[in-house]
This record gives sequence, C-alpha cells and structure tokens, in this order.
Amino acid sequence: MFAQIDTPSVIVDLDIAEANIAKFQDYCDSHGLKVRPHIKTHKLPDLAKLQISKGAIGITCQKVSEAEAMISEGGIEDVLITYNILGSKKTARLRALAETVKLSVVADNETVALGLNEAFKDAPSRLSVLVECNTGADRCGVATPEEASKLAAIINALPNLTFKGLMTYPPIGRAKSVNAWLEQANSLIKSRGIDVEVISSGGSPDMWVAHETPLATEYRIGTYVYNDRSLVMRGTCTWDDCALSVLATVVSVPAENRAVIDAGSKVLTSDLLGLNGHGHVLGRDDLTIDQLSEEHGRIVASGPINLTVGERVRIIPNHACVVSNMLDHVEMVRGTRYLGPKPVAARGCVW
Amino acid sequence: MFAQIDTPSVIVDLDIAEANIAKFQDYCDSHGLKVRPHIKTHKLPDLAKLQISKGAIGITCQKVSEAEAMISEGGIEDVLITYNILGSKKTARLRALAETVKLSVVADNETVALGLNEAFKDAPSRLSVLVECNTGADRCGVATPEEASKLAAIINALPNLTFKGLMTYPPIGRAKSVNAWLEQANSLIKSRGIDVEVISSGGSPDMWVAHETPLATEYRIGTYVYNDRSLVMRGTCTWDDCALSVLATVVSVPAENRAVIDAGSKVLTSDLLGLNGHGHVLGRDDLTIDQLSEEHGRIVASGPINLTVGERVRIIPNHACVVSNMLDHVEMVRGTRYLGPKPVAARGCVW
Repeated sequence: MFAQIDTPSVIVDLDIAEANIAKFQDYCDSHGLKVRPHIKTHKLPDLAKLQISKGAIGITCQKVSEAEAMISEGGIEDVLITYNILGSKKTARLRALAETVKLSVVADNETVALGLNEAFKDAPSRLSVLVECNTGADRCGVATPEEASKLAAIINALPNLTFKGLMTYPPIGRAKSVNAWLEQANSLIKSRGIDVEVISSGGSPDMWVAHETPLATEYRIGTYVYNDRSLVMRGTCTWDDCALSVLATVVSVPAENRAVIDAGSKVLTSDLLGLNGHGHVLGRDDLTIDQLSEEHGRIVASGPINLTVGERVRIIPNHACVVSNMLDHVEMVRGTRYLGPKPVAARGCVW
Repeated sequence: MFAQIDTPSVIVDLDIAEANIAKFQDYCDSHGLKVRPHIKTHKLPDLAKLQISKGAIGITCQKVSEAEAMISEGGIEDVLITYNILGSKKTARLRALAETVKLSVVADNETVALGLNEAFKDAPSRLSVLVECNTGADRCGVATPEEASKLAAIINALPNLTFKGLMTYPPIGRAKSVNAWLEQANSLIKSRGIDVEVISSGGSPDMWVAHETPLATEYRIGTYVYNDRSLVMRGTCTWDDCALSVLATVVSVPAENRAVIDAGSKVLTSDLLGLNGHGHVLGRDDLTIDQLSEEHGRIVASGPINLTVGERVRIIPNHACVVSNMLDHVEMVRGTRYLGPKPVAARGCVW
C-alpha cells in the first residue's frame, strides 16, 4: 500500500479526519458549546480552515509563531493564544498579529499582563486577555478563584487590555470540580462589576463529557482531529477513528521474536503518555514496539514475529500531535488513495 | 545573557565542541584507533568538516538523506551509512552518492545485500558493505559470528559488492565480550579466505574504554561532540564539557515550588535515557524538570523555587542528538559571545 510513499512517513487519512471533525462539532452543537480547535495536532492551515467551515469559531495556538504560520494563507480570522507571552520581541509580533485577526491571549500573572499592556500602547484596539486558571492540572494558571478575580481586575484596569474571560486546561476526569472552580471565579469577577464573556475549557481525553462543565462557553481541542493510541486506550475512540499513522518498513528480522523498523524516535517520538511501548502496529495486537533509538524502532513478540524484511507496517503513535511536528511534510490519503504530500506549515514553531 | 536570542533556542558553544573533538581524537590517536564521527548529534556540515580536519577519517550517517545533506557543501569525502538500506528509491540515491564520495554501508541480512547488489549493477565501482553484528545490544545485527561469516561470504560472492568488514553498535560496558565476539567472526571470515579490512565499533558512553576492544580499527561516536546529561550522569564528562544547551524563559511561577518554562517536548524531547526528569538546569541542582508538554516544561523544587517570571535558564538536555533534530537552526556561541544562527542541515532526514 502507498508504494509511491517512501518510509518512514506520516500518513493522514482525510476521510477519517473529516469524520472526526464532524462528529465532535455535532456533539458540541447539541450542547450549545463553541469549538475552538487547537492547531498543534495538525499544524495545517487547510485543516484549520476545514474545522472553521464545519462550525468552529476560530483556532487555538500556543505560540505566536504558530499563529503567524496558520494565518499566513488567509481564511483564519479568530485566534486564541493560550500562552503567557513574554518579551518585547514576541509582544511586538503579537501586536502585528492583532492588526490582521481577532486575537486573544492569556495571562496568569501580572508581569505578563504589564508586558502585553506596554506592547499595545497606542494600538488601534485593546488586546483581549483571558486569565489562565489552574483547576488541578498543576501546569500554568492562577492557583485560586480569588487570584483569578484579582488578576482580572488588574487586566481590566490596564488601558490597553480588555479582560475577556477565563481559560483552563483542566485535569482529566474532573469536569465537575473544574466547573465549581470556574463558577466561583466567575462569581467573584462579576461581583467586581467585570463581565466574563468567555470561559474556555478543553482537552481531547474528556471530549465526550465536555458538557459536564456547563459554565464553559467554548472548548479547545486538538488531538480529536487525528486521534491516537493514547485516546484509544482511554476508550475515547477506536483504531478506525485514527487519522494519523506512521508508515514504516521492516529493515531487519535478526531474531525469531524481534524485528526492527525504519521509524525511530525521530518520527514516533519518545512520548509515552503513560503507556507501555511506542505505538500500535495496526492489525498486530501481538506486537510491542518496546524500544526506540533515533532511526530504529524495535518490535518484539511473545512468539514468532511473523514479519519479513522489506514488509511495510502502519503504526498508530502514542501521541499524534508530537509526531506531526517531526517531519516537514505529511502524506495525505483517503483510504487507499494517495493524494500527495502537504507541508506542515507550523512545524517547529516554538517561539 | 544572549539577549539577541529569542527563547526557546538550542545553543551550541563552539569552544566546548572543539575541545571535545580534540580530546577524543587525542585519545584515539594514542591508541591507534581511527575516529569516524556520527553526524546525528550535530547534523552540521561545518562541524563534520572540523572533525575531519582534526583527524577523523570520515563520517557516519544512518540514513541516505543524512549523507546527502552532509556532503552537499563539499569537503566530506568518506561516508559510512550504518543502516540496512532497502527499496529501489533509497538504493538509487545510494548509487548516486557512491559516485561522489567514498561510500560504505552495512547489511545484516541477505535481502538487503541482494537489493544493494541489484542497485549497483554496472556501477563504476563496487559498493563496500560491512556486516552488522549484534554483540549484545539486541537491535539490528546478525546473531552469531557464524552468521556474520556466512553473510560475509554471500556479500563477497555478489558481483557488485565488496565485503569490507564488520560493524557493531555494542552494548554499554561490555567492551571485552564484544572483542571476543568480533575476534571469532574475524577468524571465521578469514578462514574462508576473505579479508576483513574494517572493524567498526562505537558509542559515546564507552568512549574512554574504546581501547578495550583492540580488534576495532575505527570508532563511531556522536554525542561526544556536544555531550549531555546522560553522559554526565555516567561520569563520561562534566557539565563544563556540555556544548549544547537549551535557553528557555520562565513564563509562569504559579506556586512557591513550581515554575514553567517555554521549552517543552518540542525542544527538549521526551527522551529519558533511563534518567528521572527532562534535563538539568545549570547552576540549580535543587530543581527537577518533572513534566513536559509540547510547549511547557514544568520545574519543581523541594523548597522555594527562587525563579521569577521573565528570567532565563540554561538546560543541559538528557540527550543532545534528539534535541538538535527539533529546530531548523541552532544558535552558535563561544562562551558569552554570540556568533549567529546556523541551519541544521540534516534535521529531519529520516529517509
């Protein structure tokens, strides 16, 4: 299959991606929740525009450079950057961005808010800022609803910023406690006479219980477009829902129960996401990719490996988002039909 | 420091890299061992040429596309590709390569040898092939000295190939048993009347005991040019010998004992190499980078974190080679002097 494609390559099945986009959009539509896809998974302007054409309100990026790459082709008009943006180089680029799209960002501390305010001095319009809230994932975010309220007031008082609402990347499986946290922050901020227009939650693992955070007005979601082994293992989707796979060739079968493929950590990455092994070989539940080096993936079996040198395998990686960051192109297909390579526009955009 | 450099960025200190190159070259010179650096660590033609100018006999690559990228600028004339190369697309490119440089490759099975032989039909000269030997690392390689001898005979009998010798990526810490394995294979092959010109071993972890495999004629080594946390932890080098670091900015200090930097797995990668944590914050032994997501690195401390939003940190990653594959450019420095960005010519070359 896909004889035209050299290995290792990252394959994206557009039929499956389109179905994934439609299914979650329908779910959110039925619950009155807006969808704001996170482009980190695909990094492709075409897919972002497809998500918007199916009903998404805009996109989510994490870095300014991702946003720049995504909007360069046009057709994307609303961008939320869910990251504390610091430093005059980045805030200057942010200000330029704000003149071309409807832009909002987040902050979880006053230093960031002051930097944004400084950069938007005399700008044509104020920058919208959401307060990032730590509702239990313990990454970024203000620690308590009280702190959220205080930071909202600080932002609201700055001349070049507008407080827009709350944003959280919630811990998995705790939608109800997240809702309670946001309820409290929302009340505290409103009691200051400040409007909370947007409450943004997200995450693919909990995508089908997004409605259990009814306070959220929008949902940021990335992996759902491709899905991956981590989401299959959680029961969020099935192997048939996985749009991204890695095509690899068996280059060595040096022992009865061991084989080596030409995809290593430079394609599959070392992300485990709590799983054992480095991906699922489609159609071969008996195999484990137990070790990666940069260019070698080692596959072991409890019995005979039944793979031959030169044979191709398709692998669903543990984590789709990081895999789409590894190569300059992905190979687009629909089922068994090869469409061609597509440059990964926002690959490597970490600034 | 390095105010001109935006974060996150990969910094390479040329002074340290040059010292690392010189030190290992001296060691090998004193033991009569040839050095064939593996370019996977730096992926930079300039550094490969520097390694050659200091005494290396040529370079090692793992993929055809890496070799193409490395020789594109000229100045590199001897390349060993330590990989089973399969498929007519790759072998055609290999044949083109062989017309521009002194080229050798490896094979650990007959299918690969036959494919190489087919591709070099009517070529101006035969392709040199080493037999890859599994001396205990259990990745690729023929399983026994007897199999090595058989495959050597097969290669030797093919009209378009020349059997050149043996190659192994040895298990760490077992130089003496590796030598015994190679001795046996060498004897068996010579008893067939076949010459064994090259015996190629390698690996940075055992670089200072390379002389304990006296049968080896050349040593392939990658990480030594930059070093990394994994090699410091093994006692192979010190923090001061680490030429590659990641410059990052603290973007959030959301709790007394927690901070977040703008370098996540898209820069540091998730490679653990058996270590806890995702890198060493220089000058801060009390800190642990305990969690990475794509754009966030979470740092925790047992006591107060003593980091402020906007502060910069330098991190020695667990594994230098994979980090140099993540961004299109590295930033070259000498001490505190900034030299400028350098494109990573062989980044993403997995074919």
